[in-house]
This record gives sequence, structure tokens and C-alpha cells, in this order.
Amino acid sequence: MSPKTRQRLPVAELIAKKRDGGALTEDELTKLIEGFMDGSVTDYQMSAFAMAVFFRGMSFEETVAMTLAMRDSGKVIDLSGVSAPKVDKHSTGGVGDKVSICLVPMVAACGVAVPMMCGRGLGHTGGTLDKLEAIPGFRIDLSVAEFRAQMRKLGCALIGQTEALAPADKRLYALRDVTGTVESVPLITSSILSKKLAEGIDALVLDVKVGRGAFMKTEADAKELASSLVRVGRLAGIGVSALLTDMSAPIGFTVGNALETAEALELLQGEGPEDLRELTYALGAEMLRAAGIAKSKGAAERMLTSVVKDGSAARKMEAFVHAQGGDARVVQEPDRLKLARHRVTVTAAAEGFVGEIDALEVGYASMGLGAGRTRAEDAVDPGAGIRLHVRLGDRVQIGQALATLYSSTKALLGPATERTAASFAILKRRPNTPSRIIETIRR
Amino acid sequence: MSPKTRQRLPVAELIAKKRDGGALTEDELTKLIEGFMDGSVTDYQMSAFAMAVFFRGMSFEETVAMTLAMRDSGKVIDLSGVSAPKVDKHSTGGVGDKVSICLVPMVAACGVAVPMMCGRGLGHTGGTLDKLEAIPGFRIDLSVAEFRAQMRKLGCALIGQTEALAPADKRLYALRDVTGTVESVPLITSSILSKKLAEGIDALVLDVKVGRGAFMKTEADAKELASSLVRVGRLAGIGVSALLTDMSAPIGFTVGNALETAEALELLQGEGPEDLRELTYALGAEMLRAAGIAKSKGAAERMLTSVVKDGSAARKMEAFVHAQGGDARVVQEPDRLKLARHRVTVTAAAEGFVGEIDALEVGYASMGLGAGRTRAEDAVDPGAGIRLHVRLGDRVQIGQALATLYSSTKALLGPATERTAASFAILKRRPNTPSRIIETIRR
Repeated sequence: MSPKTRQRLPVAELIAKKRDGGALTEDELTKLIEGFMDGSVTDYQMSAFAMAVFFRGMSFEETVAMTLAMRDSGKVIDLSGVSAPKVDKHSTGGVGDKVSICLVPMVAACGVAVPMMCGRGLGHTGGTLDKLEAIPGFRIDLSVAEFRAQMRKLGCALIGQTEALAPADKRLYALRDVTGTVESVPLITSSILSKKLAEGIDALVLDVKVGRGAFMKTEADAKELASSLVRVGRLAGIGVSALLTDMSAPIGFTVGNALETAEALELLQGEGPEDLRELTYALGAEMLRAAGIAKSKGAAERMLTSVVKDGSAARKMEAFVHAQGGDARVVQEPDRLKLARHRVTVTAAAEGFVGEIDALEVGYASMGLGAGRTRAEDAVDPGAGIRLHVRLGDRVQIGQALATLYSSTKALLGPATERTAASFAILKRRPNTPSRIIETIRR
Repeated sequence: MSPKTRQRLPVAELIAKKRDGGALTEDELTKLIEGFMDGSVTDYQMSAFAMAVFFRGMSFEETVAMTLAMRDSGKVIDLSGVSAPKVDKHSTGGVGDKVSICLVPMVAACGVAVPMMCGRGLGHTGGTLDKLEAIPGFRIDLSVAEFRAQMRKLGCALIGQTEALAPADKRLYALRDVTGTVESVPLITSSILSKKLAEGIDALVLDVKVGRGAFMKTEADAKELASSLVRVGRLAGIGVSALLTDMSAPIGFTVGNALETAEALELLQGEGPEDLRELTYALGAEMLRAAGIAKSKGAAERMLTSVVKDGSAARKMEAFVHAQGGDARVVQEPDRLKLARHRVTVTAAAEGFVGEIDALEVGYASMGLGAGRTRAEDAVDPGAGIRLHVRLGDRVQIGQALATLYSSTKALLGPATERTAASFAILKRRPNTPSRIIETIRR
């Protein structure tokens, strides 16, 4: 028997157990998170625990217990008043990823309820909240009561991460961000799922991105995360499936908030770039399947095509933007979204085929123009960003425009120009341009 | 180029570098410790760093840089006014380890200056401070100025860990204690050496204990720590050597503060147990050798024998106790040290030879009698403890007294009796009783 520890919960012993490769029980993990919230488990103990998890991992059972404990650190939204099946989508983050903006109204128009909690952009990746805030008046700080009321009325609503939902995740993520403990599959899994479970959903479709512009750089890593999310989500009681999708080049032609929102809105008019369309329809089809509304991918895609064609997706978007205080005219007239006034064009220095557009570099270049954040407390320039004029596989001539850069701060154009130019690889031979959808993971 | 971090020192990146197996530069480690002291590196970052070091280790160069940075977080005592060579001894902690009490005056009487910073007991191990405080009036809270003055006058002084010396170590150790990051050789090395280097010593002799009652349970682990201490200490600019010594059974016949101080004082009269004598003389000889005062172990042991015989070691002890406010009469009359009034005797339940006296169990039993601490803020019972009546290899009869337990709280005797009885193994055949000195490590 070792000497008694100084706290009711033997925190140092739990940390040492994980450090030495042991598995914590459901009860231990629940108490750890409860203690983290009530202050009896300190930040320095939690960060040491996170580092031990980085090295030792967690079993699926441990990850489920931690996920549920973090979910239960706050409210779980009661959406029992919404009769439609409730399905959300989550992306692990990319460059030019405006899928949610067109996906939510399309899926909602098909009769699926979509309660979505979104994040802001940080580093090279953008955030859906920032993109929608490019719409004049759009507000994301709904209270939980407003969120529920809008869900009942419209079948879709979008909210920023709030202290009310999964606050343990918010606190833990803030710690992980500054202690080198972000890159851990079980910690990422419990972070994503605890928030999503608090939304009161029946099912979740994940877009796990892989490649230069994604958090996961290799297919093996992305697949490991996707499998963890699917398995832990199901053990936690909801349906979860994941699409592994390619994030080497930016999605569509735009990166930046107003630019991306406008491009996503074009999709609701039956226009927009092919890769964005492919991604949106594939994720939408998976959501309809998860909701039990469509039996096959083909049937689901036909439903999605139909709500775009008959204008019901665009009308849903108008109602949604209006309900959250935004100027709904942008849905029919995306050009109303104001772009930054300082602009510069990047041109091709060689002749050939566009073989690569490095999403990570384009993401950083866009951040450098003011469209993103280096720190969570930074403000963003809604009109800043990059519009690409070419896509992978296109033939280009010397001097041809590759991209236009936008910024409200002229001095930011110079460095971003260089970075954007360097992100293109012009090849002698036409490269393959495979589908963005790599794999669907359902178990 | 990754996004700019939110602090001048990119702490999260330094942690991630160590986490991924990289080596930090001298400059990075210095800034990390400086930041820890000025608050720009938070406790939660430091504990995550410590956990990363637990898994990834540190090179000797890194450990040196961290040691020196922790030393420089506070004062380094200037003992240039003391002309004698300055040598300290440090034990990694054991049960019944009262060596310092007799060693300091013996070595000082030989002309070596001994500036000693000591700790208190915690858990099953005792602390020299607690033992000396069993002497009425003895105080250990000298100021740095008093410490220096006494060093100049007497050539020996003893002080508790103070905020003035290596405060970064004190803060880091407090964190490690509650975050499962104690058991790391480079962190233990830098913790021990940063404090010792702050004493302004020329050389250090280490008693690295191994076995049931020690922090290091195996010879391989103890040897790794000893080698790290010797190598890092030398790179940091002082002479360091280490004795690997056996800590399976308690040292001498006593465990507990007054009991141990009395036993150590007997050694100054040329009496006392053989194993305590062997350890004290071996460590003392190594100190004289490190000080350049004796050329061989034989010559050194003759000097130590001589200062005991001619009474100069005892006189040095009297002056030392007197200087620190204690009743110096205890040196000639150790029986003046008051023992606790409630007592019970543990007797042999079988006939045979004493094959094992489990130091860890005896240590916990003594702690349970009030002689030690479960928490750093606990007070100790100076008169509590255990007096053994037999040693390893002794033949015993059924009913023969094995140990007497002392406590000021009668209710504590019961559980400690059981624990003490269980710590003895009585064998059919006489066991080997090898020397406590396993190995000397000088490089």
C-alpha cells in the first residue's frame, strides 16, 4: 500500500496508470473529466494526462467513456420536438471547404433535420462560421433556446461552439493547443464526438480529409481517425459513417470567406465547380442514407438534384439566412457579397499543365491576406482571399492568370503573391485528376 | 512556415519537438526554465513537457543545460571565503539512512568543508532535517548569510531547501509529484544536481540506493541514474562520483528521527552498527578522495578513524549542533533524545535465521507510527519509530524480540506491529549477508 495521495481522486496515479500503458475504467475517466470541470483535477494534471495519451493511446472503450463524460460536462440539446431524423456533417478541416454552406439547405430541403455546431478558421484552414458571417447581418451566437426553436421551425440551424455544450472539450482543446497534445487520435475523436453528441443528433457523417491541406497528411492516418470516429460514435449510441476525401488541392476555385460563400451559393443554383458538387452530393447522399430517407446513393443523389432544380434548396437557404439575421438576397445574388478592394493577379511563369495546387500553401497565403487567423482572438477580413482561375489538369500558357488575390490591406498582397505562385506546379504532361472521394467507411 | 505562435517563446513547438524525439538546444532549455519562472511558460505546459521527457528522455547535453538553468533560477552560494575544498554528499533516499549525521562532522574534522542542503522525509523514506530536529532547539532555517558565516567558521552547515536556491527545481518537483512524472532519470538528475550546484561545491559524492527500500528497485536502474548524475555533474563543472549501495534492509538498528540521530551519534564515539559504519566510512573516504585530501581509500579511512578516536569528530558535531541552536549535550549523551512513550515489542513466530527485513515495509510501518509523512505538510513525531533487535543472518528463537515500536499515539501501534512483523522473513538456513557497497562509479 502506497502512501495516501493528497486528493480524493488519485489523479497522479491515474496519470501514471495511463503513462505505463494501462487502461482507465469508465468510472475513472468520468471522474477525471468531472474533476477537470470542478477544479480538483488541475490544468497541469490534465495536460500531463493528454501527453501520456499521446504516447499510449486509448482503447475504444476508454475513448467512448471520455467522449460521453465530455458530452455530459454541459447541456445535451433536447431535439425531441423535431420529428425528422437529425443528422449532422463534420469536416476535419480543409482549404476552400465551403461544403456545409450548400449542403445544409439541400439536405434540409429533403426532409432531414440538420443541427450544426461549427468552428472558426485557425491557421491554414477556414471555418464555416467565418464564411457565413461574410453575409451582412448573419449571426451565429444563437442561444440554445433559439437554436431549438429554429430547428423546429426550419429543420436547420447553425451555431458557434458555446460554453453550454461540451465545455470540457473547449477547455481541454485550449490546453492541448498549447501543450503539443493535439495530434492524438483518441483525443481528436472524443473532442469531435463530444460536441456532436451534445447536439442531440441521431447520426453523423464525417468528411475526414487527407493530404497536404488536411490535418491528416497520409491516408493511413486519416483512415485510422475515420475508423476511430465511426467505431466510437456507434459505441456512444449514434450512427456514424465517414468519407475519406482528398485535400491536396483547394476545393473549388475559391479560398476566403465571402469568396467561398458566394461559390457555395452558386451550387444551389445548379452551378458551381465540379469537385465541390461531387463532394457535396456524396456527403449529402450519405446523410440521406443515414437518415433512412434514401435507400441508395443513386436515389439520394436524385433527391438532392431535384431540390436544387425545383428551387426548394435555395428557398431553404433564404429562410435559414433570414432566420439568423442575414441578408437573404445573397442567395439569389451571390455577387452582393463584398470582396476586398486591393487585388493582384498571379500568372504562369511556364507553359504546361497544372499538376499541383498546394492547398496548405494556398491556405497560408489566404490567411496572410487577412482571410484567416494566426491566433484564435484575431479578426478576419471577410472580403480577403484567393480566386483560382485554373484547376488541376488545365493547360496553361506563360503569362496566363492562375489566381487573383484579394485583401483590404495592400501591404499583405506582396508576400501572399509569392506564396500563391509557389503553390502551383506546372508539369510537361497532363496529370491524372482522380475523384476527391477516396473511400467510404461505415464500420 | 507555420503560423506564428501566440508567445514569444514557441513553447508548444518546443514540447512537440521533445515529444517527437528531438533534442532541445541549450538556449531553448534555458528559455524554457526562465519562462517557467517568469510565468510565460505555464504549469500545464511544463507538466506536458515533463511527460514528453518521461517518454523520450534527454541527452546528457540537454540534461546539463536544464540543470544549469534550474541552478541559475536562484542564488548560487558564494563560498569563495572558505578556503578548504567543498564537498557534499547526497543520498537518493532510504530507510534508516542516518549517514549524513555522523558523516558531516567526521569529514569536516578531516578538513573538508561540507555545505549541505537537506530534505524532509516523505512516504517511506526519512529525511535528515527531521532527524536533526529531534535534537532540542536545532534549527535548519538558516538564511543564506548565516549559512555562509557558519561555513567559514566551522566548515560545515546544514540547511533545508530554501526558495533562494534553485527555486525552479522546487516548483518543477511539486508539479512532477502530482502529474506522474517523477520517474525520469534526466529529470531526477537535473533536480538533484541543480540544488547541489547552487551550494557552491567543488565535488559531490552520491549514495545511489538500490532495492526494496530505495527509489530505484533494480541495480540496472540505479546504475543508470548514478551514471547520469556522474556524467552530467562533471559536464556541469564539478567532480562527481557515486556509490551504489544496497537498500533492501534498513540501515543500522533504528528507523525514526530521535532513534536514528542517537544511533548516528554513537558512531562518533566509535560505537554503532557495523553496516552504518561501513557505509559512513566508504562515503567519507570518497569525499576525502574527491577533496584531494587523501590519496587512497585506506589513507582516507585511517584519517576518519583517527578523528573519531581523538574526539575531534565529536567536538565538531558539538560545535555544529550548538551553532544551529541545538542542545550539544546530546553528542556525548545520545540518550537525552526523547523517545515516544507508547511501545510494543514484535517477537519471532518461528525459529531460524533472519533472512530479510523488508526496508520498504519497515519504512511504511515507521511512517504509520508517526515518524514520517504521507503529505508534505504533515508534522512528524520525533520520538516515534522502530528499533530492531536483530540483523540479517542472526539466529532467532520463537518468542524472541525482533523489534520495539515507539509512538506518541497508542492507536498507531496496532497496524504498525502487524506491518513490522510481516517485514521479517525467517529462513531455515543462514543467508549470505554481503556488503552494502555494490559498486563505485566515477565516470
